[in-house]
Amino acid sequence: MKRILVDMDGVLADVYSRFFDLHEQETGTRLKLSDVSGMLEAEAFKNQINWVTTPGFFRTVPVMEGSVEGLKKLNALYDVVVNSMATEFPLSLTDKQLWMHDHFPFISWKQLVFCGNKSLIRADIMIDDHPKNLDNFTGETLIFTQPHNVFMKDLKHKRVSSWQEIESLLIKNS
Amino acid sequence: MKRILVDMDGVLADVYSRFFDLHEQETGTRLKLSDVSGMLEAEAFKNQINWVTTPGFFRTVPVMEGSVEGLKKLNALYDVVVNSMATEFPLSLTDKQLWMHDHFPFISWKQLVFCGNKSLIRADIMIDDHPKNLDNFTGETLIFTQPHNVFMKDLKHKRVSSWQEIESLLIKNS
Repeated sequence: MKRILVDMDGVLADVYSRFFDLHEQETGTRLKLSDVSGMLEAEAFKNQINWVTTPGFFRTVPVMEGSVEGLKKLNALYDVVVNSMATEFPLSLTDKQLWMHDHFPFISWKQLVFCGNKSLIRADIMIDDHPKNLDNFTGETLIFTQPHNVFMKDLKHKRVSSWQEIESLLIKNS
Repeated sequence: MKRILVDMDGVLADVYSRFFDLHEQETGTRLKLSDVSGMLEAEAFKNQINWVTTPGFFRTVPVMEGSVEGLKKLNALYDVVVNSMATEFPLSLTDKQLWMHDHFPFISWKQLVFCGNKSLIRADIMIDDHPKNLDNFTGETLIFTQPHNVFMKDLKHKRVSSWQEIESLLIKNS
């Protein structure tokens, strides 16, 4: 059974939706995806670092559309490992695991990895929204479209823009 | 540079010292290592599961004798990754990272992995106190003596009983 590494933020967790909510609460203005496309998260939202380092933040992030059903299907066919670069934000760790349990209770604690370097992990397929994580991976790589990567071209990764597209690639052809 | 996976509890963190303190607080009796040798932790301390699932527990554990200096030396010669099966206890995650920062500030967040399955990680050498983690590892394995493993024989792992012995094996011969 092939092992697939699935990223949390920007793949399972719809962090931009939460950023838009917080930006609107602070400024009164609702941004759209097109307003922040091509910008790094920290460029698009000047308080982003304060938000993500606040205990409780990650528990409030909505799930990405289609991700619960999609991950359930992957979990039946692959050795799924859910992986987050969470040690960058130590106060996020417990929140992130509780969030997984809230929304993806079929993923056990044995399938979680919180780390600071994804290249340490052995796997066959990786889904992530950051090229820096995908570029050095030796297996099959899928980049999940998010505003910060939407204009990047000539990537050596397959681009997917929804969980339906992930299912088309990994389930229909598994 | 070879990568070495270093376990936390029972290798860097002297959990038995803390268990002895808590047992004494609860019963008035101070146990010795010989009283619990050959027993699983949960057999030796009937409240162990309550202790380790209490938020804050892991922040109070003392460091293993010699481990700070020993890990500093390893960190200069190896690609050190500190690894704990911490997702078994979600409320321990942030405590464990803050504990590392308290006692081993020279280990960066990029060198930490909290997971539920150590066989996911790519490395050359593993130091652990649990045969279940070492048995399926394909590289060099060192078992760190703790009361629960002290009577185990015919293990295919090199036994080390102190950080001085780790240094003798991995630093003098590196």
